Amino acid sequence: MSQAEHLSPRVALYPGSFDPVHNGHLHIIRRAAKLFDRVVVAVAANPHKNPLFTLEERLELLRETLRADGNVEAITFGGLTVDNAKKLGAGVIIRGLRLVSDFESELLLDMHNRRLEPSVETLYMMPEKEYIYFNSSFVKQIARLDVPRLEGYVPDCVFRRLLEKFPPARGA
Amino acid sequence: MSQAEHLSPRVALYPGSFDPVHNGHLHIIRRAAKLFDRVVVAVAANPHKNPLFTLEERLELLRETLRADGNVEAITFGGLTVDNAKKLGAGVIIRGLRLVSDFESELLLDMHNRRLEPSVETLYMMPEKEYIYFNSSFVKQIARLDVPRLEGYVPDCVFRRLLEKFPPARGA
Amino acid sequence: MSQAEHLSPRVALYPGSFDPVHNGHLHIIRRAAKLFDRVVVAVAANPHKNPLFTLEERLELLRETLRADGNVEAITFGGLTVDNAKKLGAGVIIRGLRLVSDFESELLLDMHNRRLEPSVETLYMMPEKEYIYFNSSFVKQIARLDVPRLEGYVPDCVFRRLLEKFPPARGA
Amino acid sequence: MSQAEHLSPRVALYPGSFDPVHNGHLHIIRRAAKLFDRVVVAVAANPHKNPLFTLEERLELLRETLRADGNVEAITFGGLTVDNAKKLGAGVIIRGLRLVSDFESELLLDMHNRRLEPSVETLYMMPEKEYIYFNSSFVKQIARLDVPRLEGYVPDCVFRRLLEKFPPARGA
Amino acid sequence: MSQAEHLSPRVALYPGSFDPVHNGHLHIIRRAAKLFDRVVVAVAANPHKNPLFTLEERLELLRETLRADGNVEAITFGGLTVDNAKKLGAGVIIRGLRLVSDFESELLLDMHNRRLEPSVETLYMMPEKEYIYFNSSFVKQIARLDVPRLEGYVPDCVFRRLLEKFPPARGA
Amino acid sequence: MSQAEHLSPRVALYPGSFDPVHNGHLHIIRRAAKLFDRVVVAVAANPHKNPLFTLEERLELLRETLRADGNVEAITFGGLTVDNAKKLGAGVIIRGLRLVSDFESELLLDMHNRRLEPSVETLYMMPEKEYIYFNSSFVKQIARLDVPRLEGYVPDCVFRRLLEKFPPARGA
Repeated sequence: MSQAEHLSPRVALYPGSFDPVHNGHLHIIRRAAKLFDRVVVAVAANPHKNPLFTLEERLELLRETLRADGNVEAITFGGLTVDNAKKLGAGVIIRGLRLVSDFESELLLDMHNRRLEPSVETLYMMPEKEYIYFNSSFVKQIARLDVPRLEGYVPDCVFRRLLEKFPPARGA
Repeated sequence: MSQAEHLSPRVALYPGSFDPVHNGHLHIIRRAAKLFDRVVVAVAANPHKNPLFTLEERLELLRETLRADGNVEAITFGGLTVDNAKKLGAGVIIRGLRLVSDFESELLLDMHNRRLEPSVETLYMMPEKEYIYFNSSFVKQIARLDVPRLEGYVPDCVFRRLLEKFPPARGA
Repeated sequence: MSQAEHLSPRVALYPGSFDPVHNGHLHIIRRAAKLFDRVVVAVAANPHKNPLFTLEERLELLRETLRADGNVEAITFGGLTVDNAKKLGAGVIIRGLRLVSDFESELLLDMHNRRLEPSVETLYMMPEKEYIYFNSSFVKQIARLDVPRLEGYVPDCVFRRLLEKFPPARGA
Repeated sequence: MSQAEHLSPRVALYPGSFDPVHNGHLHIIRRAAKLFDRVVVAVAANPHKNPLFTLEERLELLRETLRADGNVEAITFGGLTVDNAKKLGAGVIIRGLRLVSDFESELLLDMHNRRLEPSVETLYMMPEKEYIYFNSSFVKQIARLDVPRLEGYVPDCVFRRLLEKFPPARGA
Repeated sequence: MSQAEHLSPRVALYPGSFDPVHNGHLHIIRRAAKLFDRVVVAVAANPHKNPLFTLEERLELLRETLRADGNVEAITFGGLTVDNAKKLGAGVIIRGLRLVSDFESELLLDMHNRRLEPSVETLYMMPEKEYIYFNSSFVKQIARLDVPRLEGYVPDCVFRRLLEKFPPARGA
Repeated sequence: MSQAEHLSPRVALYPGSFDPVHNGHLHIIRRAAKLFDRVVVAVAANPHKNPLFTLEERLELLRETLRADGNVEAITFGGLTVDNAKKLGAGVIIRGLRLVSDFESELLLDMHNRRLEPSVETLYMMPEKEYIYFNSSFVKQIARLDVPRLEGYVPDCVFRRLLEKFPPARGA
């Protein structure tokens, strides 16, 4: 990563697993889209986790969800987040901070990222209270038991895909 | 606060007590100055605290410290932070997040601010590890005992002002 | 406190400063009122704090707010909370837990109370997300600046009383 | 879960993995048994964890341990905890809160449960200081090394079963 | 503080307010006394707090309590803790860590102390579970209400002194 | 573990996984080596984790790194840490405390260890700010992507071994 890319503070990278994207993610993305000229939602190809949706499915669900959001695009990525920010010309990484327990690991990651690449800044956003308890692992856990309970947690296309994966009948 | 000001996401308000400004504040200000077109450092006229420096002194020390920072200015303010952001046309409030214990009170303040004024966004920045333990109350505590120990903690003009307020001789 | 009172697990004491009562308190009280036969809201005569409302005013505002809540009453108290629970025959103390930072001081207090009086149990309730950021000190801080911004934070009678104490005109 | 069960605030569900039950669990159960008419200890059939004891063994150990506790019974369950509470007519779920790090995940779970089923309340109990550091994973870890060190950590029947599973001779 | 004192890792300074000393302090002191050749308990002359006992009283109560502890002595001190460690030839500062909320302020203080005086090390000790909830401010709060409830919290000489300061009759 | 070993407060055990040792570990080891006559770095044979380096490799890397440190030695161990301390005659266990989230699990472990073996004391050290964010799992994660980025994170011999395991060419 030696080439000197031009990094713009008007371009923000929002990385995550998005397995699947939920309405808490969406709220952050849309607030970021008002602050930056361009927001790149980047789905991490994390080889160590065992995701519910493949990398391609997660990308596709994000793209369907964000179709109408003009200055937002979705991509997949591997490698270090800061390297991807540089490649994309993004001067800013956006992270949501929901919890005390998130905070400390984010603080460490911030220190690592600053050491690895001091020219990229990370900015943090707090969730709206409505979304403070949303997370993908809860979505997956409920989906396995009773998808209809997830109404309002996830975008429509994700809800439909979850219904396909876990057809009701299992009841409660 | 009914008039509809135009809020720019390129203008950031950085509020605080700055009693006095220290090098951890400066690092945040200068990183913010690279991300935004204009950064307004706003000294809170907090009537309940018993500050070491008057509101005017705190403003003056900030202005002297930031003289060479082109797109940064310093002001004083009273009232709600979000109202001041609106008055100044600032679409963004910047806050530093150093500690787990900071995090939770900031999360609550974020919720209050969103309720009071949903059009203003707050973005959080983590400190460089060099500054993670800097805070004004430590500066004041040491200043009372031995100002020279504060070298590297505060800008030069603050250091000199502290030496005037607490002349050595008290020894150690 | 040597007499052996009969403590009922159907009677709950909900102690606090209530300076003033806000809608987050009310939500806890009303949820508790569905679980217990009798809920006693107890305003602490805390001599060390400098309250906005006198003990009598705080009691009066609670009583006005809770007039229609059949199995809820409000009192004032001094001394140890566990002693008051015993005097009232309350086998349960109710505490709200909003925050990580609340949690630890509550855990210590629980240990002290168990040592002081093992026959009284404390049960904790989490806030509804709508009220997670409500607290009396924020209410007082905003009230000093702009009471009308507090709509929805406090019961009507508190809102009116705050308007009397801090008449607008100060504007924003 | 559409049928309208009658939920009693006098019936409490205490869910957990209980792999195996330890004396910290027992202390919570017995304190709860003094506060409620009926306490149902519910062993979760968590398909994702790899337990030391099977669901049936965990149930059996609980039943043996609680034989003399008149108003306490033990069952197994699958699915959402709130759905099981409803099925059982339990208006209350009991959870122990030992740690700051427990607190935040419990707060989120409380929010999810309130959304999924607002008619069921969760009440939290703090541990006695004697049991604050007890947890099943420590019990399992020590059991693999030296079961006799677990005296006082677990009920007698669990101690004996652990000795069978991990017969000494391994020494220390 | 320019003279080059010889610092011994066998001498430990245990600083605090000790207003008053309680049994949790004593437990730390006695454990430290087994690890170090000499333990100096140092009462801070903190001019900003409003103590219950004067500096002299706090020193006297410590000395009476520690009379039989051969390698422990008590002193008072002003100024920076690290400077006092150097003056006393103590290579080690001992701090108790009871709580998550203690931890973070201790971590910051450690960073400040390392910057102020890198030759002095701080070692932390965790409390025995029996003392985890002991703290001087609780002792003072209960003393004002009912001294006899403090049996087992404080050394005998402190108990007697508290009885003199707050004679019963106030009852409960 | 019935034989009565003589435990010296001058001998310290520093246990860990060291998979691999990094410069944050080294800083703690060398500070401890100034405080104790003998420091034994003990690599845990943790059968449940899936390490990057074998137990033998981790030991060898530690020994190579610590060759010049006179009073420091490295060993491997199985079983309970307190039992190993006793076998080695170590009266002290040293643990680094980097994070709020470390703190609570260390507090519980301290309670377990005190119960299992009250004659062994654990002393905690805070990291230098330079190393506060160092941890082995980050090292492993970066190593898989781009070993050269780890310069300054790990001792030379670890760096070379990582280059062998993950030869560049993968680029970034």
